[in-house]
Amino acid sequence: MSGRADNADLGRDGPELKVLVRDLYESYCATLDDGDLNGWPDYFTEDCNYRVQSSENFDLGLPHAPIFCRGKGMLRDRVSASGVMVYEKRRQRRFVTNVRISEYEPVIRASASFLLTECMLDRDPVLAMTGRYIDTLRKDNGRLLLQDRLCVYDNYRIVQNLIYPI
Amino acid sequence: MSGRADNADLGRDGPELKVLVRDLYESYCATLDDGDLNGWPDYFTEDCNYRVQSSENFDLGLPHAPIFCRGKGMLRDRVSASGVMVYEKRRQRRFVTNVRISEYEPVIRASASFLLTECMLDRDPVLAMTGRYIDTLRKDNGRLLLQDRLCVYDNYRIVQNLIYPI
Amino acid sequence: MSGRADNADLGRDGPELKVLVRDLYESYCATLDDGDLNGWPDYFTEDCNYRVQSSENFDLGLPHAPIFCRGKGMLRDRVSASGVMVYEKRRQRRFVTNVRISEYEPVIRASASFLLTECMLDRDPVLAMTGRYIDTLRKDNGRLLLQDRLCVYDNYRIVQNLIYPI
Repeated sequence: MSGRADNADLGRDGPELKVLVRDLYESYCATLDDGDLNGWPDYFTEDCNYRVQSSENFDLGLPHAPIFCRGKGMLRDRVSASGVMVYEKRRQRRFVTNVRISEYEPVIRASASFLLTECMLDRDPVLAMTGRYIDTLRKDNGRLLLQDRLCVYDNYRIVQNLIYPI
Repeated sequence: MSGRADNADLGRDGPELKVLVRDLYESYCATLDDGDLNGWPDYFTEDCNYRVQSSENFDLGLPHAPIFCRGKGMLRDRVSASGVMVYEKRRQRRFVTNVRISEYEPVIRASASFLLTECMLDRDPVLAMTGRYIDTLRKDNGRLLLQDRLCVYDNYRIVQNLIYPI
Repeated sequence: MSGRADNADLGRDGPELKVLVRDLYESYCATLDDGDLNGWPDYFTEDCNYRVQSSENFDLGLPHAPIFCRGKGMLRDRVSASGVMVYEKRRQRRFVTNVRISEYEPVIRASASFLLTECMLDRDPVLAMTGRYIDTLRKDNGRLLLQDRLCVYDNYRIVQNLIYPI
């Protein structure tokens, strides 16, 4: 059994799974948009990978990524690090659309488009980043968790700076 | 019965309710994007509250809001006022994502993220506003209506000006 | 039987149809965002119309449209033409929301809002275009196809240039 998205089985399970995945993505964004950084690692499995990478590097298969975390511990470390960093206050908002599921067994492979806006205290809102999430998800006690999240951004450079996770 | 979103009942009623709420939000945006200002008050109950407030004020619990309407009459008044105002022609579009329902009984409490774009006659399109809707909804004759809509914007200031409702 | 969206039947078929139409729109965007121009004509019927038009012209009922293709052959021609054009490399992303169905029989009439972002190699991401799709869709062997797609953009001019389809 292939578990590919073109499998007829997905017609049965697909739409419901898509609703679940979209709910997860929206909840993830809400957590970050609300500034609840401590809640962010909870969306991941213990052995997760989290990377933020440019399209150039992704397309060429190059490994460098401005953020590269292996395991939930590194996510927690990143969160606590942001507590000691000095940076301008900002408000971010994430808009996720185009959720697609390409594989659903044994792991779920999904992707989505994201748009990140950033509002600083003295500037008009900017389009800080656009890109896509390329994910592997796993069910854990009936809950979906991110095992691998790769955020590939379209911009040629980071617009302001990269403090919060994408 | 708590009616909180973590109640198991929401698992049964939740997804359908979410579809209804999202449909309402999309229809609300379409009405405004199409320039049908007169249709806008129809989304509200007679005793509604409608406010547009900055994040700063919202976070500090301060009451000031650039737009503060109590009751459907004030919404209608605002619509007719915009007919005598002098301003540059513009085209707006609202993108709503991240619809979440936190409570569903006795009233429905929901929130969503919005992104507002504005196109003037002689400038490239701008990201005019981003923020969130914080709503209380009520069913009235089988139809969902907004009893309380609070639009909290992320920007530190209104980008061009605030003529149409958000 | 009117087939209008206010028909009670749509309550039965509507939500499912809306999911199908949204899936089609998302898949369409993904194809273009991924740069798969050759896959683009497959979303259309043989006798399709595809137009990109300004709001000004659309509102005044004027026929001029910067892109006007009659029939799938002209779509294919446009795709192959883009292979010989000289232009700056760019990455685009399409965000579609607000899918609405106004008629479902004998053809499906649907509309949606789109937001197009563009990332060049040496500039920060821009909001290249916002607007709406106004579509007529037809079922063909159980698959939805675009028979008529009209992209009406809000901007007063094309921001950079119009190389890829919207």
